[in-house]
Amino acid sequence: MEKGLFITFEGGEGAGKSTQCRRLKSALEEAGHDVVLTREPGGTAESEKIRDLLVQRDGGNWTPMAECLLFFAARQMHVEKLIKPSLAAGKIVICDRFTDSTIAYQGYGHGFDIPTIEQIARLSLGDFQPDLTFILDLPVAEGLARSLRQKEGAAGRENTEDRFEKLHMDFHEKLRAGFLDIARKAPSRCVIVDALQPVDDVYLMITQAVRESM
Amino acid sequence: MEKGLFITFEGGEGAGKSTQCRRLKSALEEAGHDVVLTREPGGTAESEKIRDLLVQRDGGNWTPMAECLLFFAARQMHVEKLIKPSLAAGKIVICDRFTDSTIAYQGYGHGFDIPTIEQIARLSLGDFQPDLTFILDLPVAEGLARSLRQKEGAAGRENTEDRFEKLHMDFHEKLRAGFLDIARKAPSRCVIVDALQPVDDVYLMITQAVRESM
Repeated sequence: MEKGLFITFEGGEGAGKSTQCRRLKSALEEAGHDVVLTREPGGTAESEKIRDLLVQRDGGNWTPMAECLLFFAARQMHVEKLIKPSLAAGKIVICDRFTDSTIAYQGYGHGFDIPTIEQIARLSLGDFQPDLTFILDLPVAEGLARSLRQKEGAAGRENTEDRFEKLHMDFHEKLRAGFLDIARKAPSRCVIVDALQPVDDVYLMITQAVRESM
Repeated sequence: MEKGLFITFEGGEGAGKSTQCRRLKSALEEAGHDVVLTREPGGTAESEKIRDLLVQRDGGNWTPMAECLLFFAARQMHVEKLIKPSLAAGKIVICDRFTDSTIAYQGYGHGFDIPTIEQIARLSLGDFQPDLTFILDLPVAEGLARSLRQKEGAAGRENTEDRFEKLHMDFHEKLRAGFLDIARKAPSRCVIVDALQPVDDVYLMITQAVRESM
């Protein structure tokens, strides 16, 4: 553990990434590790400003290329200013989304050329990669239902089915297939986690995999 | 003139780019052309938001890589949303700074890897280039003196020499040499203009070159 460990969580809406990130952080801290929990896009003061541009879209609609360059500008700052220094200090860095999300959302989901995204990744980050990536996988309908319930509370529960159409099921199917494809192409880095399991079972599987990678 | 004409102005501080951009715009409009005068970084609502991040640096100091990605995110939006549509409509686009400024400032000036900048340019813009670029060239001391006089008015005129040290003469020498090198490498696109000449002579030389390129 001298050189730190960089763990990322990936997956679509409602898969429970944030919950599992927080639980893993607590578990590792209880075991005596120094842990940094961060997220993308964002994670540093500068990168959060880029996140504002991307998330609010208040300046209008970005071209797919500009969006991709903004994601990697934010990511490169995040890596240089927070992630690499933390790893060099022997800390464990847990990050909610990273490059895989750009490839899944912008590439597989929105159809932006994946080799171009990969070239921008290589130019900006070199061969820097997570040590371990959890892909939280869930059938699209279940993920969207969970996501809607979180947003609406119990009251919204009954009409969630009717609202799926608005949520671009096709897009989320492409996203899910994309994440699974990414995992299949990088089996030594990626662990696919069946997020249909009870949340405690997901947690146990994740902590087990992290322990094995140390 | 069916397909428009894309003209850029480049050069260091105090070389008179803005003045010449405006005069050229007026001259071309008087001759009956539709002219769009724009600038970088910026030029569209979205790109101006990126300009704010770059110019104010209020989020902290960008890494050279993030800065470069932000410049090209802004530039790609500018090209897709304003420059190409204007050219397609047969307009003349005059732009105060473009890719050459990123190569001169970030590359030659600040030492960021020039082939990397060129790769990002190719990835984001393809082979899109200005049709004609004016490199306004001036000895560094003269450019900085003009720039200071503009900022301070006549009162500041006497002690400008003393203040050159603060302005990183070395950096501006590298910048000037960079712009001249860029021009030497792209002689069919770039025209070096001796900006020590009287402003009217500079203007005549520029309008003459534009007429020849039409």
